[in-house]
Amino acid sequence: MQYSVPAVARLIEQFAKLPGIGRKTAQRLAYHVISMSKESAFAFADAIKEVKNSVRYCNICQNIADSDICSICSNTVRDKSLICVVEDPQDVIAFEKTKEYKGLYHVLHGLISPADGIGPDDIKIRELLNRLKGDEVKEIIMATNPTIEGEATAMYISRLIKPLGVKVTRLAFGIPIGGELEYADENTLLRAIEGRREI
Amino acid sequence: MQYSVPAVARLIEQFAKLPGIGRKTAQRLAYHVISMSKESAFAFADAIKEVKNSVRYCNICQNIADSDICSICSNTVRDKSLICVVEDPQDVIAFEKTKEYKGLYHVLHGLISPADGIGPDDIKIRELLNRLKGDEVKEIIMATNPTIEGEATAMYISRLIKPLGVKVTRLAFGIPIGGELEYADENTLLRAIEGRREI
Repeated sequence: MQYSVPAVARLIEQFAKLPGIGRKTAQRLAYHVISMSKESAFAFADAIKEVKNSVRYCNICQNIADSDICSICSNTVRDKSLICVVEDPQDVIAFEKTKEYKGLYHVLHGLISPADGIGPDDIKIRELLNRLKGDEVKEIIMATNPTIEGEATAMYISRLIKPLGVKVTRLAFGIPIGGELEYADENTLLRAIEGRREI
Repeated sequence: MQYSVPAVARLIEQFAKLPGIGRKTAQRLAYHVISMSKESAFAFADAIKEVKNSVRYCNICQNIADSDICSICSNTVRDKSLICVVEDPQDVIAFEKTKEYKGLYHVLHGLISPADGIGPDDIKIRELLNRLKGDEVKEIIMATNPTIEGEATAMYISRLIKPLGVKVTRLAFGIPIGGELEYADENTLLRAIEGRREI
């Protein structure tokens, strides 16, 4: 850019680092910040700092929390015999929206991906195994995405857990509710056939 | 959301206020901030505050600047007889990218839009007229967008300026370079025909 104010250029850089924010959008957002009132802009900046200062990971499930133990793990009504293993905190929110799942979670914070140099020790697998030391947990639901990395991580973890005598299940994959067969891809259809049930 | 950490919910709110950022994207960005290092997140927050602290509007052209007079207005090489009137600071950057335009700018910070309650006094028209008090300025190029508001604002300003003996021109509108006639909309084609020139 030939013409630029350094502070604006720096803010554009910062926005452009965010996932899914390209150069043009970063520029638009930076100019929006310039047009915001000082109070609003400072509230935005402080919200970013506050998140880093107050949010930590739950000692048990590794989900985000604002205390040592998250509100799900400390909820006495939840079924402690069931753990749903997910890739990241957003997945927890998706499951909580069902309002039906009453078990606990375990957030891996990533998936095993040798191509990206992410091995089993780089995600929260050890913390999951530690939770299985007592005999409270009866079932682990592997709820990673149906991608190559998601499947590989689910397989890897299930092989570690099965010898401990804990049941390991995988989410069902198939035609989404409201979806149309006609528009389903081959892999989804294949999984739907493989996962068929007697009615 | 049933499950949430207050600081995260607040950051999602803040992101969702940005233009073009929906709820889902706001959530994704907030979770990204959580996963950033504290240093990176604080650098982001500080860049926002720094912009509000250091960026002001140029006393002459109303473009963003980090001193009273912006680097374009204070550049002695630029042609001070020519002013290109634009809606916002991003438009200045677009013109500067041509590397050919050597005149000055005037940023209106909006367009007249009675439907949105924005009248002539709400944008920087008075500041533009003040710049015409000497006889240095010979031509004003109205470079607002070819929208209803952009056209109306261009017409309104040209009626104010013409009696002062200053030439007022409008950007050419027509087929974009690299564009195909086949895909041009009717309005663009109409403007291209109206603006035709002898070759």
